[in-house]
Amino acid sequence: MIKVVVIGSGNVAQHLIEVLLQKEGVALVQAFARTPSHLASLLPITTITSDYQEIIEADVYIVSVSDDAIAEVTALLPFENRLVVHTSGSSTLSVVHSKNRAGVFYPLQTFTKGKSIDFTAIPICLEAENELDYALLTTLGSALSQTVLTIDSEQRKSLHVAAVFVCNFVNHLYEIGAEICEKNDVPFEILHPLIQETAHKILERSPREAQTGPALRNDTKTITQHLDFLENSTYQNIYQLLTQSIQHVKKL
Amino acid sequence: MIKVVVIGSGNVAQHLIEVLLQKEGVALVQAFARTPSHLASLLPITTITSDYQEIIEADVYIVSVSDDAIAEVTALLPFENRLVVHTSGSSTLSVVHSKNRAGVFYPLQTFTKGKSIDFTAIPICLEAENELDYALLTTLGSALSQTVLTIDSEQRKSLHVAAVFVCNFVNHLYEIGAEICEKNDVPFEILHPLIQETAHKILERSPREAQTGPALRNDTKTITQHLDFLENSTYQNIYQLLTQSIQHVKKL
Repeated sequence: MIKVVVIGSGNVAQHLIEVLLQKEGVALVQAFARTPSHLASLLPITTITSDYQEIIEADVYIVSVSDDAIAEVTALLPFENRLVVHTSGSSTLSVVHSKNRAGVFYPLQTFTKGKSIDFTAIPICLEAENELDYALLTTLGSALSQTVLTIDSEQRKSLHVAAVFVCNFVNHLYEIGAEICEKNDVPFEILHPLIQETAHKILERSPREAQTGPALRNDTKTITQHLDFLENSTYQNIYQLLTQSIQHVKKL
Repeated sequence: MIKVVVIGSGNVAQHLIEVLLQKEGVALVQAFARTPSHLASLLPITTITSDYQEIIEADVYIVSVSDDAIAEVTALLPFENRLVVHTSGSSTLSVVHSKNRAGVFYPLQTFTKGKSIDFTAIPICLEAENELDYALLTTLGSALSQTVLTIDSEQRKSLHVAAVFVCNFVNHLYEIGAEICEKNDVPFEILHPLIQETAHKILERSPREAQTGPALRNDTKTITQHLDFLENSTYQNIYQLLTQSIQHVKKL
């Protein structure tokens, strides 16, 4: 039985607590939150502490706080030589204060407050300072997910950058699409099947093979019409830049 | 029984032929292709013609050719006062030569050669010059899909622009993500669950509510790190422009 303490009460921390409570071979023995009420819907209040001195012993401490707070929070932990991991895509292993053994337990997914998610499908990217700790993280990761990988700090940074493109930026393009629909009295839902198919396509073929549209065809007439249609200059710039980038990649 | 002739042999034409052959209440009586062999895997060669003079009588002619060719192809049709529709998102009703009754039958989806698709989930956007023709297109559309909508030429143009953002541009961001992974020896497949979840999220909440990430949090430290990490100046520009746009929308 792996004893786990989760430190943090944000979105990722809450999803981790939820799944850790469900899985066999894992015991969530405590959670730390500056404001315990944030976790009150998930855990008995006696299992939550807001006092660093009260943090109990465990096999692994999962620090799921904002990137900027990892160094500070791990420095405040009142113990030494235990396994302390963070869950950040963009922070190195060494951000964890050196008095404890550092690791990374990064679930590569977008978490939404109040929306449950199938954790078994989420890749968990691991890093640790030594083999024993890595083995423990592998056991823990495998209890939650079907996909557990070794990803070093540099690879994890690249994954995080890529994730911003395929998640945050993609979602912003959905947002622009929704805004265009709204302005023209067209329900955004009409685009739902197209959005789902575009995402499904790349499960079977590379995004490069899957590309279609006026930019790829170099259909300058349609491109010019679209740029005229867009009144928002930022959206015109985005349209132009992405069109050029598609055409540039095509030539490679 | 609605008798249909499909004119064209491209991606959309082939998917239409495939589904028209399967549905009850619809008879695909002929297809026109300049190069009949393009359709030989779908239809008996006797059902395909490459001679405009040989096109037979039907209730509706679906002209599924490139946008630029619609005017020319519909001008070459050797008959008058029949219902002739195009399948283009970015062409107006009036592109169809005026000797016939014009209509639009626009399936809003991205079609991939050789990849079958569930047509029942594809919204079909209709437009016609008169009510009788519109009624026939509605019957035809309903035979293929659960979602049939009246969309006028201006709305269809807006939908097409929005579709470029949520499909072609989104796919290009997938492409950039795949390239970043490849350069850093990380399998792109690790991002598949994130991509699917990002697409699923907006079925339940608006893209604006679904947004997360460093741009939204105004996490300038991470943004600067990511820009440093990206060596490709086009990708840096895309990162910067989309980050600014996310932050601008947030303030609205």
